[in-house]
Amino acid sequence: MAQEHVLTDVENDTWLDSFELPGAPEGCSLRKRTLRGGLGDGVDLVEVSNGRLAFSVLPTRGMGVWRGDWRGTFLGWKAPLCGPVHPRYVNLPDRGGLGWLQGFDELIVRCGLDSNGAPCTDTVPDNNGNPMQVQLPLHGRIANTPANRVTASADGDEIAVSGTVQESALFTPNLRLQTRISTKAGSNSFTLVDEVTNLRGVDSEMQMLYHVNLGAPLLGEGARVLLPSAAVAPRDPRASEDLDTWRTYRGPTAGYVEQVYFHDLAAAASGETLAALGSADGASAAVLRFNRNELPCFAQWKCTQAESDGYVTGLEPGTNYPNPKPFERSKGRVVKLAPGESYRISLTLQVLDSTEEVAGLQDEIAAIRGEDPEVHPEPNPEWSSRG
Amino acid sequence: MAQEHVLTDVENDTWLDSFELPGAPEGCSLRKRTLRGGLGDGVDLVEVSNGRLAFSVLPTRGMGVWRGDWRGTFLGWKAPLCGPVHPRYVNLPDRGGLGWLQGFDELIVRCGLDSNGAPCTDTVPDNNGNPMQVQLPLHGRIANTPANRVTASADGDEIAVSGTVQESALFTPNLRLQTRISTKAGSNSFTLVDEVTNLRGVDSEMQMLYHVNLGAPLLGEGARVLLPSAAVAPRDPRASEDLDTWRTYRGPTAGYVEQVYFHDLAAAASGETLAALGSADGASAAVLRFNRNELPCFAQWKCTQAESDGYVTGLEPGTNYPNPKPFERSKGRVVKLAPGESYRISLTLQVLDSTEEVAGLQDEIAAIRGEDPEVHPEPNPEWSSRG
Amino acid sequence: MAQEHVLTDVENDTWLDSFELPGAPEGCSLRKRTLRGGLGDGVDLVEVSNGRLAFSVLPTRGMGVWRGDWRGTFLGWKAPLCGPVHPRYVNLPDRGGLGWLQGFDELIVRCGLDSNGAPCTDTVPDNNGNPMQVQLPLHGRIANTPANRVTASADGDEIAVSGTVQESALFTPNLRLQTRISTKAGSNSFTLVDEVTNLRGVDSEMQMLYHVNLGAPLLGEGARVLLPSAAVAPRDPRASEDLDTWRTYRGPTAGYVEQVYFHDLAAAASGETLAALGSADGASAAVLRFNRNELPCFAQWKCTQAESDGYVTGLEPGTNYPNPKPFERSKGRVVKLAPGESYRISLTLQVLDSTEEVAGLQDEIAAIRGEDPEVHPEPNPEWSSRG
Repeated sequence: MAQEHVLTDVENDTWLDSFELPGAPEGCSLRKRTLRGGLGDGVDLVEVSNGRLAFSVLPTRGMGVWRGDWRGTFLGWKAPLCGPVHPRYVNLPDRGGLGWLQGFDELIVRCGLDSNGAPCTDTVPDNNGNPMQVQLPLHGRIANTPANRVTASADGDEIAVSGTVQESALFTPNLRLQTRISTKAGSNSFTLVDEVTNLRGVDSEMQMLYHVNLGAPLLGEGARVLLPSAAVAPRDPRASEDLDTWRTYRGPTAGYVEQVYFHDLAAAASGETLAALGSADGASAAVLRFNRNELPCFAQWKCTQAESDGYVTGLEPGTNYPNPKPFERSKGRVVKLAPGESYRISLTLQVLDSTEEVAGLQDEIAAIRGEDPEVHPEPNPEWSSRG
Repeated sequence: MAQEHVLTDVENDTWLDSFELPGAPEGCSLRKRTLRGGLGDGVDLVEVSNGRLAFSVLPTRGMGVWRGDWRGTFLGWKAPLCGPVHPRYVNLPDRGGLGWLQGFDELIVRCGLDSNGAPCTDTVPDNNGNPMQVQLPLHGRIANTPANRVTASADGDEIAVSGTVQESALFTPNLRLQTRISTKAGSNSFTLVDEVTNLRGVDSEMQMLYHVNLGAPLLGEGARVLLPSAAVAPRDPRASEDLDTWRTYRGPTAGYVEQVYFHDLAAAASGETLAALGSADGASAAVLRFNRNELPCFAQWKCTQAESDGYVTGLEPGTNYPNPKPFERSKGRVVKLAPGESYRISLTLQVLDSTEEVAGLQDEIAAIRGEDPEVHPEPNPEWSSRG
Repeated sequence: MAQEHVLTDVENDTWLDSFELPGAPEGCSLRKRTLRGGLGDGVDLVEVSNGRLAFSVLPTRGMGVWRGDWRGTFLGWKAPLCGPVHPRYVNLPDRGGLGWLQGFDELIVRCGLDSNGAPCTDTVPDNNGNPMQVQLPLHGRIANTPANRVTASADGDEIAVSGTVQESALFTPNLRLQTRISTKAGSNSFTLVDEVTNLRGVDSEMQMLYHVNLGAPLLGEGARVLLPSAAVAPRDPRASEDLDTWRTYRGPTAGYVEQVYFHDLAAAASGETLAALGSADGASAAVLRFNRNELPCFAQWKCTQAESDGYVTGLEPGTNYPNPKPFERSKGRVVKLAPGESYRISLTLQVLDSTEEVAGLQDEIAAIRGEDPEVHPEPNPEWSSRG
């Protein structure tokens, strides 16, 4: 068994200002340090490298993955802020529930756990069992909640960082995220295994969406999304405008207004499926691998505005589409967990860096779904609240 | 005179990361440390022990009392969060003014100073003297305001921690809390002496309620509230449902909806009175001792939901009932302080751990109020805004 | 060339807990330390002295100037709070958008950058290009945003601290403030040179106001504002009440309600102008020097309430008057910056401490504007939204 090194354990009064994992596999490393100064003052940062692929994890921001690096190539995007941002500088209800954007600059950020999607008013039972209106902030609370337990371990050729984040308070949902993020020496991928558990004595709802964000250099003019889409629909009239080019991306375009497409992805019999961003030259790609049984919905976010404004695309597998929660509830796309029940999700980010590998990926996609997707010319009112 | 050791003094640029009180009485200790990691990162914690009774104080959370321990028995409750919670993670106006719950896990938490009770809209003069509507958050600001001065001292067989917390800003109330929390070597009690002063040049309102929260093991099926109630009324129809069993508590009950009873307590001629939670076996109790002239109102909060949801009861002596402030104002239950005027409150928490002591407590209660209370079958519209 | 010492550089992972500038001019010093405890826990403080004039800068609060000292005389005011206040304790949308007051205690605080003035609802394009209503908090965000880069330098007889603060997030304005605050050995003044740059790929609005706040001992009964006013108008009926005494100040007056006067200042041909607070005895003054081309508007804030409530006057040169932003926009007083465009502002605070110097100042004012200002008896609807 691998030895588990404790970096943070609030229950047992443990927290390490800095740490280096002993016994990491040859060429690998896992280090923890605490950022100081600016918006990131006090943020815990765990930096993992398997010798070729590196990525950093933010325990202070709900165990999100801040940035990656594949043999010198940046993985992530350049948000228009100087992050990472400590949750103390994020006011979720601010700006009509859009305060989440004040801290948004990660490669992978979880949206949940009680809710995700657009900010909205929801009706929930209050502590007297009566209906109460609450404002749900954009993409929920988990990304601005710090982990209360963080551990690291090495086992054979694998290194991993694990964390526990609790989204809870009296009279509100009490959902625990346990995540393990691991990679193998020399591998071209890392994997998140997440388990969300309802700690409440009563049933709870749960929503999860992985907002995976990529900018330059992978994203560029002519970059393409690669995925086994069975059906695609624009989120709104703005996305309908360029429906025929949903697969391809523009270069940085000042004043560009975002376009979002909702997909129904095909999957292998096991449920395994994928979505990738392929570079314009066809020689590299970032691939997300996940299971449609766990993450049945997929949103593609095109946000190819100017570099300085945050040139980016989001590949977003989720338990739901990122509409306001009441809409998702009405469509049966909100997970319900009994007391003690857990929901498990696995998500892998893989990097390909040769024409052969990208061609292989396209074969793999064709094997899942050989034909073109059904294209909805208009927003699908079953998928989009703006339909 | 006892020597006063300064742990924090913002005016004079003093703050100690850790501290141990020298010259503590035999068997006693008073230590300060700073919590790191998770939601409590940066919270100052003062741990006091008199050899038998221990308790911890949170200067960062308005000098609240986090938890206690009586000879190995836990005093407090297990809120559904991993606390203590730094105020940076508490957004008071959030969730319709219920953000206070995001940090609520203490044994004793003060609710005030400008306001306490349910969140509401109030009308106050703005900086131009015109009426302005403001949202008052649940239970006010004091529990999420850090002390700017903290000292510790030993004197004979007594140890004490003192703190100053200022709830203020330009054009808003400017109320200063000075508290001294002390215990004696080997004693079964500790005492808070609070003084709230209006620092403004004009009259100010003040509200104070001590939210004293107890869960297992003292609370359990068949536990009882022990108090010299002269009259009791349900807060709302939900509390009316189980009016006949207001004295006794259920075991943890998944889905239980809180029930609150408002009391008019009898008192000795001096004003001294008390309220206690007695364990089901009659062999232990936690007793609150206070003066009805200082804290004329008393609320009993039954919240016997599942353990994981925060199984708890609140014994809540206050200057008012925890209704929205405008209601309390209309009933004459908001304190008014002239410029420079202070309001002094003393509150003792005592632990009893034998059948004899509990029987003695019941005799003491009977001596104050021998007969059963007047029972209002319906909410009393003089006491409850939900009446 | 002066060597630049880096105190904070988030991009390059630099932050110094404490620092002392080497090679400072004779009698001068520049030190940095980190405050601990209370509301200021974690605030970076840079203390600069030129041997006669000292002032402190708050990188954590947007490079504001906290307090000054002229040969033992306090420069600033005593706000009714125990500051400086870390932004984590400031909830801008709170109390109807007045949360900014929770941290307001500086000598010089910038109000901006996207907006300043009274809290209000504004209509801005959302991330889909559609109109969205947002709540603009009092005086904007810059004073509660930490610098991500701070440097210090000495060059000949000059010492300076510089900082970069970015007010930005995805889909919102992205404005960068670069400031350099410098003084010379033995000088009676220090100077801020600010440059605000639009980092967005599209046009952005900008507002800036310098809220310069002075209390005792310079402010006192009979103190006077000294400035080359071409026209003065009360902000509202309350200010009209005492229009004939707009130049002079009362002593501390419990219950005093603020009075604000808007001015159109005359200027030299170069645009250079000034505004000063002169002490009652005519023997000292604090002078602001700036350029009307950069800061065309001027507000005079009389807030002579009781000492304990924050006895203060504000001298407020700005790009606009501190009305709600939509009003200022409608009057053409909101700056528009093209992508990459910058707006430069220079502001000097100078201290005079002899009757001769103050008389010289009055001559200087008379040379700019010899005659009395045009006095609007009523609020000017072109200047004030309350007109």
